[in-house]
Amino acid sequence: MNSVKEKQFHVQTLAVIGVGMIGGSLSLALKQRGLVSKVIGVGRSRANLQKALSMKVIDEIAIDVVEAARNADIILLGTPVGAMATLLAQMVPVLDQNKIITDVGSVKQGIVDQAKQIMGHNISRFVPAHPIAGKEHSGVGAASADLYERHKVAITPNADTDPDALQTIVNMWRSVGADVVKMGVEEHDRVLAMTSHLPHVLAYAMVHYFAGSADREKCYQMAAGGFYDFTRIASSDPAMWRDICRMNKGQVLSHIQGFQENLSDIVKLIENGNDDAIEALFSDAKKARAIVTEKRKARQEHDATKDGRQRVQQLVNR
Amino acid sequence: MNSVKEKQFHVQTLAVIGVGMIGGSLSLALKQRGLVSKVIGVGRSRANLQKALSMKVIDEIAIDVVEAARNADIILLGTPVGAMATLLAQMVPVLDQNKIITDVGSVKQGIVDQAKQIMGHNISRFVPAHPIAGKEHSGVGAASADLYERHKVAITPNADTDPDALQTIVNMWRSVGADVVKMGVEEHDRVLAMTSHLPHVLAYAMVHYFAGSADREKCYQMAAGGFYDFTRIASSDPAMWRDICRMNKGQVLSHIQGFQENLSDIVKLIENGNDDAIEALFSDAKKARAIVTEKRKARQEHDATKDGRQRVQQLVNR
Repeated sequence: MNSVKEKQFHVQTLAVIGVGMIGGSLSLALKQRGLVSKVIGVGRSRANLQKALSMKVIDEIAIDVVEAARNADIILLGTPVGAMATLLAQMVPVLDQNKIITDVGSVKQGIVDQAKQIMGHNISRFVPAHPIAGKEHSGVGAASADLYERHKVAITPNADTDPDALQTIVNMWRSVGADVVKMGVEEHDRVLAMTSHLPHVLAYAMVHYFAGSADREKCYQMAAGGFYDFTRIASSDPAMWRDICRMNKGQVLSHIQGFQENLSDIVKLIENGNDDAIEALFSDAKKARAIVTEKRKARQEHDATKDGRQRVQQLVNR
Repeated sequence: MNSVKEKQFHVQTLAVIGVGMIGGSLSLALKQRGLVSKVIGVGRSRANLQKALSMKVIDEIAIDVVEAARNADIILLGTPVGAMATLLAQMVPVLDQNKIITDVGSVKQGIVDQAKQIMGHNISRFVPAHPIAGKEHSGVGAASADLYERHKVAITPNADTDPDALQTIVNMWRSVGADVVKMGVEEHDRVLAMTSHLPHVLAYAMVHYFAGSADREKCYQMAAGGFYDFTRIASSDPAMWRDICRMNKGQVLSHIQGFQENLSDIVKLIENGNDDAIEALFSDAKKARAIVTEKRKARQEHDATKDGRQRVQQLVNR
């Protein structure tokens, strides 16, 4: 039964609150596949919404979140995480057991706690989610229909979550090519603080330090490909990352401290000229990086095989 | 007169000591353009030299560095920086004022100091250089003839350097498409510690911390594109980076300390919930990163225009 349910997804009206790269890409992906009848967009920037309309990312602009939520079957919170509580509070009067609310926030515990306080018994219809995709760009101009293909989407249900609402959101993400991973809320925030939040803070700190250097101009001149890739994520949206640092404060600070201790150990090795230990540490890191590369390649090959199988199946079914 | 000299480069016999990605790529680039008559390779790994021979990166394998140096007009030190002093000391008996020695080390002060002690009056024929190109791979298998096109090569002459030897090495790098930047030795080591050595140490530290996490397996699963790009340089050769940390110890430690202070400032802002200051700092970093992107783009466009002009000129000259 589940297998049938998993394959079906269609929504009549989707409201996207905050039509940026993330929400916009989901909308485009669903529309391209004919899996949504109407998309209503809401946002602070009129220019961005007009652009979304002209790009056919959305079909209509709503006056406010209340109007959007009233007319929607699924409401997607696509804003920076810091704005979500206020938006939820505004739309509470029009929420009911027939609507599903979901989000795309990079931090989950804070949103889940806030939603619980705000939504009352309708909390069962809130499905916390986090698509782990994106580029260093932001705004609807960066939206693309294939953003989620072969990308992970973490979904973090809890005891309050209604199983049907959960399954619908799982189906929605799978329908646009994503690989859904169910995780605990706390586990999500701890793991993502490591794989994403810490690297972002380090990249911001590195570029900030670099830009404050007396050698700034020469550094700009000599920066090569390694520096360029290393700092790419420092081009991410500052407001979004400010919110993530606030809302995942504990995990982010804990990982920064762990990293600092690790870096201080390396400083001691360099100071003491402990060459063998330095080489061993760098070798261990190189090996760990190789595992990331292998897993990435295996995933891409697995997906390619799956795609191949699907294409063969489509030909057989003709 | 100089402009004529700049356009001409040809060497009879080039000895590449350490035939890896860096030395191998230069050799391939020169051979492809017919700018070298013979390349002799020396190295510790017989298998790597055989591979270099079969890839036509080198024409001959020499028994040892002395034999290679004796028969060469230009001697390129292509090993990790830590091995260069020993090699120089071995070849001293066969060096003379007709040969030029140059290197590709990522650190310059240490090598220049060592060469001065070892080479006696032949120090005038040593031209310290550092091609700022490369990938996270190593070994001759990663060599490619176009590695240096549109890439910077820092050349750090000093009062001892013979102007003719200097001009020959400048011409050599320009002939393979590189953009030569002359810098002071100390300036080079300080600037490169910022743009390259610090990011490498941070990437190694990040991956080492990540790999030691209790959430390791989940982290491997959830690591996305941002993490992947951020840590790419942690796949670099551990022995090479061990040597760089040792030979540029002062600058590397000074920049790690500066970075740590910057990171500690961010920690305080997060602890105090100083959201405006966090957003401002992230915005500043994003702006600085945008300058790097612009300069990179301008360079590529400039080069593309130059290429275009050269192609037009070639057509006109037919």
